[in-house]
Amino acid sequence: MSNVENLIESVGELWNRYVKHEFVLKMRDGSLPLDIFRYYLVQDGKYIEDMLRALLIASSKGPIDKVTKVLNLVFSTRDKGLEIHSKLYSELSISRDEIVKTRYNLINYAYTRHLYYYANLDWNKFLVAWTPCMFGYSIIGDYVVESPHQLYKTWASFYASNEYKKRVEAILDALNEVNITEGLLSIFVDSVRFEIGFWEASLRKDPTVY
Amino acid sequence: MSNVENLIESVGELWNRYVKHEFVLKMRDGSLPLDIFRYYLVQDGKYIEDMLRALLIASSKGPIDKVTKVLNLVFSTRDKGLEIHSKLYSELSISRDEIVKTRYNLINYAYTRHLYYYANLDWNKFLVAWTPCMFGYSIIGDYVVESPHQLYKTWASFYASNEYKKRVEAILDALNEVNITEGLLSIFVDSVRFEIGFWEASLRKDPTVY
Repeated sequence: MSNVENLIESVGELWNRYVKHEFVLKMRDGSLPLDIFRYYLVQDGKYIEDMLRALLIASSKGPIDKVTKVLNLVFSTRDKGLEIHSKLYSELSISRDEIVKTRYNLINYAYTRHLYYYANLDWNKFLVAWTPCMFGYSIIGDYVVESPHQLYKTWASFYASNEYKKRVEAILDALNEVNITEGLLSIFVDSVRFEIGFWEASLRKDPTVY
Repeated sequence: MSNVENLIESVGELWNRYVKHEFVLKMRDGSLPLDIFRYYLVQDGKYIEDMLRALLIASSKGPIDKVTKVLNLVFSTRDKGLEIHSKLYSELSISRDEIVKTRYNLINYAYTRHLYYYANLDWNKFLVAWTPCMFGYSIIGDYVVESPHQLYKTWASFYASNEYKKRVEAILDALNEVNITEGLLSIFVDSVRFEIGFWEASLRKDPTVY
């Protein structure tokens, strides 16, 4: 069994609460209200930038062969992600300025600071903290890409793409080099909880004060 | 006007929502339920350790004369703080092990990662993020030390002590060297919000899952 399979088995029920969250089911069946999706996209835009910055901090501390492989795949497939996101942003009139100026909701702030915290400590810790996002979205992408709703289908098409899968493969490959201790498992669990919290904060449209 | 006075004036109403929070008023009049105070003390025990670690990270990046003055006062007055906290811990049967093993509530996790985040960036940013806690508690200490409730009076006696005031003076003195930009003000505001959130999470006894 690969490390990611072991990790997912260890967190049990929590994993499905993330990848099959009400938010995800509603994207898939097309019933998610657009204002909620828009709120989510803005918060996610902030998250992505922090995640990339944290990745760069962590990368400076990792084994150079694995690190360069991951970075190469993240950056070489970034155009496709940007292209799809630009399309969504333009359909929903979201500007880069709005993403920068909107503040974080509490969950997003805590989650991104959590990524920075581990990135500043250690590559392996960051990698484990980062995996729920990267791997979870590939599963969610496959599931939501069947949506009858054009916007949610477009959103999912990136995470269901071969480009994204290659990125995830490199990450899971790097993760397989790590000896998963109890401490690392608990970092993984925290990130899964933050992902669940991220959907919930979006459904509630939590205040953005941080 | 000193920088801290300017900062407090800029945040307006928010400052009093922190230092005169319901939690504080209830310590002062003695009506705060003990189980809530106990919950708070455990979370605060976790916070203090992270705050000290973040201070050390930030200190490695600051002007050496100011940094050593602050560290000297923090560490030379730490015995008094530990003594008072040991007394409270023993009266409420709180062990070091319980503090370590209890997880963070979301606000406490976000707040401590926020301190680490700025500590990893820059001494001035950390200093501004740290000030609401250090200065606010000296005001709260003076206010709560009049409490008829022996436990809350004991708690406050540390923050109302000359030792603690000296510590705060060194911090405010270092803060006066900083040119307060809008970006720094926004870090200060976030920390004040986290302090308010900390009281509120304690009153509600938020789940400790992070």
